[in-house]
Amino acid sequence: MSDHARAFAEKFLIKPGRTFKLKDVDPRDNSIFQNEGATKAETEQLARDIDALQDRLYAEGQRALLVILQGTDTAGKDGTIRGVFNSTGPIGVSVTAFRRPSENELAHDYLWRAHLACPKRGMIGIFNRSHYEDVLVAKVRALAPKKAIEQRYAEINAFEKMLTENGTVVLKFMLHISKDEQKERLQERLDNPKKHWKFNPADLEDRKKWDDFQDAYETMLNECSTDWAPWYVIPGDRKWVRNGIIARIVKETLEEMDPKYPKAPWNPKDFVID
Amino acid sequence: MSDHARAFAEKFLIKPGRTFKLKDVDPRDNSIFQNEGATKAETEQLARDIDALQDRLYAEGQRALLVILQGTDTAGKDGTIRGVFNSTGPIGVSVTAFRRPSENELAHDYLWRAHLACPKRGMIGIFNRSHYEDVLVAKVRALAPKKAIEQRYAEINAFEKMLTENGTVVLKFMLHISKDEQKERLQERLDNPKKHWKFNPADLEDRKKWDDFQDAYETMLNECSTDWAPWYVIPGDRKWVRNGIIARIVKETLEEMDPKYPKAPWNPKDFVID
Repeated sequence: MSDHARAFAEKFLIKPGRTFKLKDVDPRDNSIFQNEGATKAETEQLARDIDALQDRLYAEGQRALLVILQGTDTAGKDGTIRGVFNSTGPIGVSVTAFRRPSENELAHDYLWRAHLACPKRGMIGIFNRSHYEDVLVAKVRALAPKKAIEQRYAEINAFEKMLTENGTVVLKFMLHISKDEQKERLQERLDNPKKHWKFNPADLEDRKKWDDFQDAYETMLNECSTDWAPWYVIPGDRKWVRNGIIARIVKETLEEMDPKYPKAPWNPKDFVID
Repeated sequence: MSDHARAFAEKFLIKPGRTFKLKDVDPRDNSIFQNEGATKAETEQLARDIDALQDRLYAEGQRALLVILQGTDTAGKDGTIRGVFNSTGPIGVSVTAFRRPSENELAHDYLWRAHLACPKRGMIGIFNRSHYEDVLVAKVRALAPKKAIEQRYAEINAFEKMLTENGTVVLKFMLHISKDEQKERLQERLDNPKKHWKFNPADLEDRKKWDDFQDAYETMLNECSTDWAPWYVIPGDRKWVRNGIIARIVKETLEEMDPKYPKAPWNPKDFVID
């Protein structure tokens, strides 16, 4: 990554080893991108750049990129995937939504299903929610013993270290929205019949525990932003700001990976096609 | 599907019960689309329509669409996926490339890995090659006993019938290119260093058995074009003609499926968001 690119990404980076307060990030911050039209146009260009870089990643076939998206209900995880990756050919992208675990998944350790869904070499894998639910909802709803949850931060860090040491670059984005913004988005899902299917009455139960969830996020960000797999907190109230920032970090990460078309182990002149 | 749409699709349909000769299809046929620029523009619009229809399919969450792509090396399977599905959000599309089976896959019956890769309800699944390789390369290279291969046609038909009876619509496209066109495309992979990674010297071995492969395709088309999962043979020498035809059939198939945003089991007025 260029110094310029690194300076951009660092604005949103949770620096390992320093104490971070979630309330220090303004979800409506648009100091980076002010102009909606220009930002959307830039994001579309970034999306095309990501597609071209992904093509090289696929051809190279040696490394993978894992993009983890976390955020409360309505934070814009689906919208980010559409906004940033819609131009990326489906050949090279796999999206996994982590919903309530199945009986079979629960019969394994909590990292099992995440590992199973990790992208193959050459691919971009996107996690819509992830193993981080096991220190978020699992913590707030006490779905596992307190001690087990406490151990998970180090377990996750070790798991992600192994991934990065074996060729997978890990990008983690927390989509940070305000409580007011969530209210508007939930109301929109009730008001628009085409969005009814996205509304889950259980989301209102989670909303009542807003502060507990914010605390769990803050702990997660402090415990699991590592040198090898840092967390980025993205101001999420404005969708176009969110998409612009994430598209830029993804593109710059792929540029830094700099995947190369592989050299053939043969000489083209050795072949005659009849 | 409207009568007009059906008439379009039927031009490429292998009619169950009639004897079909592959040589009766001209791979360079462009009687349907003559104008390259206009066809490309139309295909882009169709791709956007497919994206919108896919959104409804995903929201409905009751049915799936499975698109099977078969064709000789360089026939344009990857290119079709890019051309027809690049606008379709990666949330709703899963692509599976069927390569040489792994040891674990070979330890199961040949349909096992295909079944595992079938799309979930709400999704479009794309097979780049498929279980049909088990009556194509497996036949030409005698990778299984003759009798086993003979039995597979009926087995595949029964498997696909089960899929369609359980909510998955199956579309099967054979991308039909001429031997001359394959020569040009293989040469291009040798001449362009950025395409070297796509060139596999083993493809030349398959090319030597061109007629055997064409025979295997013809048998497959005659045996496995069924009322529930018909085969379409698509003239493939012109990429824009191929993409235009397939985009149109996919779009019209989704239109016929007519997925609906589900009705919520609650009344929006029952909820107050604090």
